[in-house]
Amino acid sequence: MSGKPTAPETTRRLAAIDLGSNSFHLLVANYQDGRLQVVAKMGEKVQLAAGLDADENFTPAAMERALGCLERFAPFLAEVAPGDLRIVGTNALRAAHNAHALIERAEALIGHPIEIIGGREEARLIYLGAAHALAEVHGRRLIVDIGGGSTEFIIGEDFEPQALESLHMGCVAYTGAFFANGDISEKRFRRAEMAALSELANIQNGYRRLGWQDPIGSSGTIKAAAAVIAANGEGDAGVIERDALLALRKRLINCGHLDKVAMEGLKEDRARVFPAGIAILCAVFEAFDLERMRYSDGALREGVLYDLVGRNTPEDSRRHSVEQMMRRYSVDLTHADNVERSALHAFDQVRKAWGLNAEQRLFLAWAARLCEIGLAISHSQFHRHGAYLLEYSDMPGFSRPEQQALAFLVRAHRRKFPHKELEALPEATRPAYARLARLLRLAVLLNHSRPEQAVDDFQLDAQGETLTLTLPAARLHPLVLNDLEEEASYQRSVGLTLRYNE
Amino acid sequence: MSGKPTAPETTRRLAAIDLGSNSFHLLVANYQDGRLQVVAKMGEKVQLAAGLDADENFTPAAMERALGCLERFAPFLAEVAPGDLRIVGTNALRAAHNAHALIERAEALIGHPIEIIGGREEARLIYLGAAHALAEVHGRRLIVDIGGGSTEFIIGEDFEPQALESLHMGCVAYTGAFFANGDISEKRFRRAEMAALSELANIQNGYRRLGWQDPIGSSGTIKAAAAVIAANGEGDAGVIERDALLALRKRLINCGHLDKVAMEGLKEDRARVFPAGIAILCAVFEAFDLERMRYSDGALREGVLYDLVGRNTPEDSRRHSVEQMMRRYSVDLTHADNVERSALHAFDQVRKAWGLNAEQRLFLAWAARLCEIGLAISHSQFHRHGAYLLEYSDMPGFSRPEQQALAFLVRAHRRKFPHKELEALPEATRPAYARLARLLRLAVLLNHSRPEQAVDDFQLDAQGETLTLTLPAARLHPLVLNDLEEEASYQRSVGLTLRYNE
Repeated sequence: MSGKPTAPETTRRLAAIDLGSNSFHLLVANYQDGRLQVVAKMGEKVQLAAGLDADENFTPAAMERALGCLERFAPFLAEVAPGDLRIVGTNALRAAHNAHALIERAEALIGHPIEIIGGREEARLIYLGAAHALAEVHGRRLIVDIGGGSTEFIIGEDFEPQALESLHMGCVAYTGAFFANGDISEKRFRRAEMAALSELANIQNGYRRLGWQDPIGSSGTIKAAAAVIAANGEGDAGVIERDALLALRKRLINCGHLDKVAMEGLKEDRARVFPAGIAILCAVFEAFDLERMRYSDGALREGVLYDLVGRNTPEDSRRHSVEQMMRRYSVDLTHADNVERSALHAFDQVRKAWGLNAEQRLFLAWAARLCEIGLAISHSQFHRHGAYLLEYSDMPGFSRPEQQALAFLVRAHRRKFPHKELEALPEATRPAYARLARLLRLAVLLNHSRPEQAVDDFQLDAQGETLTLTLPAARLHPLVLNDLEEEASYQRSVGLTLRYNE
Repeated sequence: MSGKPTAPETTRRLAAIDLGSNSFHLLVANYQDGRLQVVAKMGEKVQLAAGLDADENFTPAAMERALGCLERFAPFLAEVAPGDLRIVGTNALRAAHNAHALIERAEALIGHPIEIIGGREEARLIYLGAAHALAEVHGRRLIVDIGGGSTEFIIGEDFEPQALESLHMGCVAYTGAFFANGDISEKRFRRAEMAALSELANIQNGYRRLGWQDPIGSSGTIKAAAAVIAANGEGDAGVIERDALLALRKRLINCGHLDKVAMEGLKEDRARVFPAGIAILCAVFEAFDLERMRYSDGALREGVLYDLVGRNTPEDSRRHSVEQMMRRYSVDLTHADNVERSALHAFDQVRKAWGLNAEQRLFLAWAARLCEIGLAISHSQFHRHGAYLLEYSDMPGFSRPEQQALAFLVRAHRRKFPHKELEALPEATRPAYARLARLLRLAVLLNHSRPEQAVDDFQLDAQGETLTLTLPAARLHPLVLNDLEEEASYQRSVGLTLRYNE
C-alpha cells in the first residue's frame, strides 16, 4: 500500500512481518526520537489455517500462497539490517505438523529466520502494539484480538499487561469446525458460540475480577464488524454496541450460506470467515457481559516493532524474563554471576577466531545465569529439568527458537555432550551453539567448587575446533585437573579437542 | 537376630525394609506412646550394586541373593498391617535397567509393593532416623551416610533438615570403578578420593557456609571404621579422629589387595568394599575440613518407620509437600479447594461400588489440588507440564511410584483420556487410577467456570464402568451440557460410559 522510500541515514529502519493464521502483514517503519514513523504497510489474506488438511499439514496450495505473499513483501526489506527485522509466526504455524517445511522454504526465500512465538508471547506483543496506539488513553483496558487460529485476551494499564491469555479459537478454525459445509443457521451459530464460551469459561471469572474500564478490539474481525455496523448506520465509527452486534448476528444467520455473505463495509475476502469471527465476538460479549467495544489499530506487528526497539537495552524484555526465571527457581545469584563472568571472559577471547556475534554473547550470558534453574525440581538430572523449563515456559520477549537455543545450552552444560539435542537445532545455528556450549561447560567447570569470586584469569585460544586453556599455576588444583581430564574426554568422544596446561 | 514376638493388641506394629545398594535391612518395631520399641532387626550384605553387569542390569545371581534375603525377612512381616509396612529401594534400584524385573518378583514373593525413592527423599528419611537417635543432643549437625551406591549429606537441627543432598558415590560403586582388579595403591586410592572430591565440590562451600557443630556418620562404612579404629586402640569407641582415619588409610594401602584386607573389628563381608568406603570418608574429611566424626545408629530404616508413624496425620510430610508445590507454582487456592471438594463428593458416592480405599481418596484430593501447577510454565498443554513437575520434583514424603500416580492423575485431568500413560502405571493399580482420573475430570468439568463456591450438590452413581451423573436443574447450563457432551465422547473413545441428565 506504500512505495519504497529510503530512510535518512540518522534514522533506524525497522520491519516486522506477522505470519498470521488468516493474514500475513508487513510493517516497515523508521525509528527516530523514540517514535515509529510507518513507511510501508501491507496485508494479504493468505488463509494458512484454512489450508490445513485433515492431518494438520499445510496443503501445497497454502504453501504457495504463503510463499507468493512473502515474495511480494521481500523488496520492502532491502534496507533493513538483519537485527532490525523480525518475522513471527503464530497459531497456524504452531499447529501444522509440516510447518518446518514451509519455514525452511520461506527462510531461503527471504534470507532471514522465522520465529514461531507462543500464545502468551503473542498476547504480550499485541498488548505492546495496542498500548502504543492508545498511549494517550489511561485506565485499565481489556484488549481482544480475534485471529484466524487463536484469540488473545489481555488486561493491562498503560504499558503493563496484568493478564495475558491465548485461547484456541479463531475465525478460520471455527469456520472449518462449525460452518464446514457453508450453511449458516441459528443452531450452527450457537454451537460455535458455545465452543467459544467453553474456552472463555477458563478465564472469564478471573478477568472479571480484575476488571477494566475500556474494552478494545484490535483484529480484522472486529475492524470489519465495526465497519459493517457503521455502514449500516447503527453506531459511531469504530464502536460496536451490543444491540448492533446482535442485529449483525441475525443478518448473518439470515444470509443462510457463507457464499451469500455480502454486506456493505465488508471486504469480499473476509466474508467467508466473518460469521465464525462474529460468533466468537458474540461469545466474548456474553462471557464478559460487554455493552460495547471500541476498535483500535495497533496489533501484533506494531508490538513486534516496539519490542525490537527495546532489544539489547536495559528494557529488553528478555532480560526481565531471565531474571524472573532465576527468581522463581531460586537460583544461587553469586554462582550465576560467576559462571556468567567466566563464560564471557572465555567468549571474548575466542570471539574473533570463532566468528561469534553480540547476540550469541547475550545467549551465552543468559544460559550461564539460567543453568541451575532445574535444581529447584531435583538435583538428579537437573540440566534436563532446566532445559524442559526453558523450552516450555512462557518467557516474555523470547521466541520459541530462542528458547530452544537456551534450552540446548542448559541441557549441554554438564555431563555428556548432547549431540542428539544439538541435531534438533536448526542446521544453520548448530556450529555456533556447539561452540557456545563448550564455552559454557568450561565456565561451569572452572566454578565447580563454587568460589566467592569469579574465575576470570585464564587464557583461552581457539584454532578451528581445538580449544587451548591456560590456567595460572595457582589454579591448577588436582580437582580442576581431574575435571579437565574428564571434560577433555567428553569432548573427545564427540570429536572435539580440549587442551590445557598441567 | 531376634525371634518372632507377638505384639500386644494395644500397640501398632510397624516394619520397614531398606533395599540398599550394599545391604538389605529389616526393622520391625512396636509403636506405643509416641515411641518405637524394636522387636526385630536384621541385615544382609546382598551387594546389589556389585551385581550390576556392564549394561547396568542385575545379574541372575544378584537377583537370587536379593530374593533369598527377602524370603528370610518375610516371616517377620506376618503381623504387620499393609499400611504399616514400607519397603524402599535406593540407588542400585534407581540405576539398574532391569530393576523392574527384580521388583516384580520381589513384590510377588513378599505380597507388598516396593517403592523406589529419590536421593533427596532418602536423605530426608536418613535425617529423620538420625534425628530420633540423637533426640537428646541439640545444636546443628552434619549427617553423612555412605551407602553402596550413593552418599547422603544432611545439615539439620533437631527434627528439621536444612540441606539435603545425595551424591553419586558409594562404597560398592567405587570399589568397581577404582579397585576393579583388586589392587590397592596410593595412586588408586587418591583417584577414588579425587572423584569423591569432585562430587563434593558441588556442595562443600554451601554446606560450610551453613555450618554445623557436630559431624555424625550413620552408615556401615563409618560404623566399621570406628570399630577398627577402636579395636586398634586409637580412639574412643564410636569416634573417628582425623589422624586415626589417615593411619587407617595407610594400613589399607599397605594391604595391597582387596583380598588381603583383614583387620580386627572388621567383618569379613565388609572387607572388599572397605577401602573404597574409606576413600570416600577421607574425601569427606578433606572437603569439610573435619577433625572428627561420631558414629550414630539410626538411619534410613528408622526414618522410614518414623515417617510411617506420621502418615495420614496433620504432620504427614506428603501434605506439606503438596502445599509447597502449590505455593511454588502459585496455584489458585479457591479453585483448588473447590475442585478437591467436588472430587471428594464424587469419590464418596462411588467409593463402595468401585471398592476404593482411604489412601486413594488422599491421592485424588492431592491431585485435585495440584492439577493446575503446570499453568506456571505455560497455559498450552499445562496438564503435561504439571505431570512433568510431579514426576521429577523432589517431593518430601513421596516415593517415586506415588509421584507417578499423582503425575498420571494430573496428566489425565483434561483433554483426551491418556490411555498410553495409564499403561505406564503398575498393572495392579491401573483400574483404580483410571477410575480416580474419571472422578477428577468430572470435578474439573463441574468447576470449569471457576465459581466461588464448590459444586457439591450432584449425584453420582457407578455400575461397573458406567457412571451416571445427576445434576440439579439449576446447574444444567448449556455450557455444562456442552462440556458433558464432550467428556462423554472422550470417555466413549476409550470404551467408558458417562451418562447424565439433560
